[in-house]
Amino acid sequence: MNPGFTGSPLDRVDHLRNDEDGYRALLSDWRARILGLDGISPVLSPEGGLHWQSLADIEGEAELILLGMADGKPHFVPVTDVRGDAFRTPALWSALNTLPSEDAAIYGTARSLIDWHNNHRYCARCGGSTKLFRAGWGRKCTACGAEHFPRTDPVVIMLAEYEDQVLVGRQTRFPPRNYSALAGFLEPGESMEEAVRREIKEEAGIACGSVRYVISQPWPFGGSQLMMACIADAQSQDITLDTNELEDAMWVTRDEARAALAGEETSRFNAPPPFAIAHSLLKHWADNG
Amino acid sequence: MNPGFTGSPLDRVDHLRNDEDGYRALLSDWRARILGLDGISPVLSPEGGLHWQSLADIEGEAELILLGMADGKPHFVPVTDVRGDAFRTPALWSALNTLPSEDAAIYGTARSLIDWHNNHRYCARCGGSTKLFRAGWGRKCTACGAEHFPRTDPVVIMLAEYEDQVLVGRQTRFPPRNYSALAGFLEPGESMEEAVRREIKEEAGIACGSVRYVISQPWPFGGSQLMMACIADAQSQDITLDTNELEDAMWVTRDEARAALAGEETSRFNAPPPFAIAHSLLKHWADNG
Repeated sequence: MNPGFTGSPLDRVDHLRNDEDGYRALLSDWRARILGLDGISPVLSPEGGLHWQSLADIEGEAELILLGMADGKPHFVPVTDVRGDAFRTPALWSALNTLPSEDAAIYGTARSLIDWHNNHRYCARCGGSTKLFRAGWGRKCTACGAEHFPRTDPVVIMLAEYEDQVLVGRQTRFPPRNYSALAGFLEPGESMEEAVRREIKEEAGIACGSVRYVISQPWPFGGSQLMMACIADAQSQDITLDTNELEDAMWVTRDEARAALAGEETSRFNAPPPFAIAHSLLKHWADNG
Repeated sequence: MNPGFTGSPLDRVDHLRNDEDGYRALLSDWRARILGLDGISPVLSPEGGLHWQSLADIEGEAELILLGMADGKPHFVPVTDVRGDAFRTPALWSALNTLPSEDAAIYGTARSLIDWHNNHRYCARCGGSTKLFRAGWGRKCTACGAEHFPRTDPVVIMLAEYEDQVLVGRQTRFPPRNYSALAGFLEPGESMEEAVRREIKEEAGIACGSVRYVISQPWPFGGSQLMMACIADAQSQDITLDTNELEDAMWVTRDEARAALAGEETSRFNAPPPFAIAHSLLKHWADNG
């Protein structure tokens, strides 16, 4: 099982990030590759992969993040100003269905970092302005010197299970007939397992016992999220919907899940796309009956 | 296996946080309980648990976080100014060994939130000042209106395993003879499994294959962290130490791990304290041979 946005071929070279001279040298390396972006969307090559440019294509003042190294070449992405950009365009969603997984992983990392830089141009401790440091893996306050590091929010995404059925739900903003696993942000002071039980209880009114972790993926939309996919043992099937969170929720069988994952026209619902961990999770459950 | 800082008896009442009138009403509820703190350390009751005060004990201007409800009573903690406070005092470390686990979970949540409030008094997007909202589960910018939510950093903590031995390491700041699981922050664009492999490679030079998740815990020191404990299949035992991260690393057997966990004087090393997930992880491995 290879979740979406995993499998980047880049070496993150953590040891080079604190080496200011080394970073400067990489910035004048003629072999350097720069990720091509149109706003916050990837520019695609004729072959349908990411499009890489050279340093000569970059504006002089751009902040550059060192994504990592591959084949001896440094790979950068410029911090484009993406505020206000629509974050999930239909064209991007469509491209993600065909983008090679290694490329999706690189793009996801770049996108999350760009988003973070744009939302952290000031210091949360003192209000001073910040500047890029650690080769783009941090920002430092020019006033108080506080160091800030990219944020990733842990999110639980899960199926409640009861007698060979699992619970799926839909939000109002979903495309018609689409259902997915329930999900929510983990809060300070919670374990993953506690967050899973709380979210299912809050959104569907169902108490759960033991929780089994299945798999995880990074998710680069709306910042940077770590999606942790689990299956929880439900103690009943009586749904009490939180209509602020969900428009509907229902229990589905393995046959119904398989039909949805296969995209059958007569399926009871539409499944999430393959690059979403909810797809991997539902498939894991459907295949392990 | 009940990891440290889990098992809080408080209902987080997410639905009340957006109810400004309801929050105000709880703030004048004479049954309200206020967590007693001395700086950022817990005040202990004569029985060795948390000490709870009443609203009458609070300064009028204190920001109050609604931790949750229990027995019909709202439970709050004031946002004390803890900047510069030593974050791990020997007295606190000692208290954590005897504090009931439910109380440690409440304290951990409170401590993480207080830390977050103190470090987010300004808006990272525009530099304006922020004020508490959502009953303490957020801050809102008074200038641009941006909403900010408490941050939790995902951290991987793991044992590399090779032929019935696991790898433990020690940092310079550890007490003498102490060894623990390797650990590090997950980065944007990584899955949990990828972060585990990268950290072991960076810190000990060992390549790993498959990764098995074991258990998680919240960790309230140095902010708010989600510790995700894993075991990874190592492909060799040849250690190349990153001396910036670790002072030493070594392979230990199950017998050696059991002796360390039991606190035997003749043990090869000292194990982490029971409230740390590294203890639970090592015990899980030692007990499942």
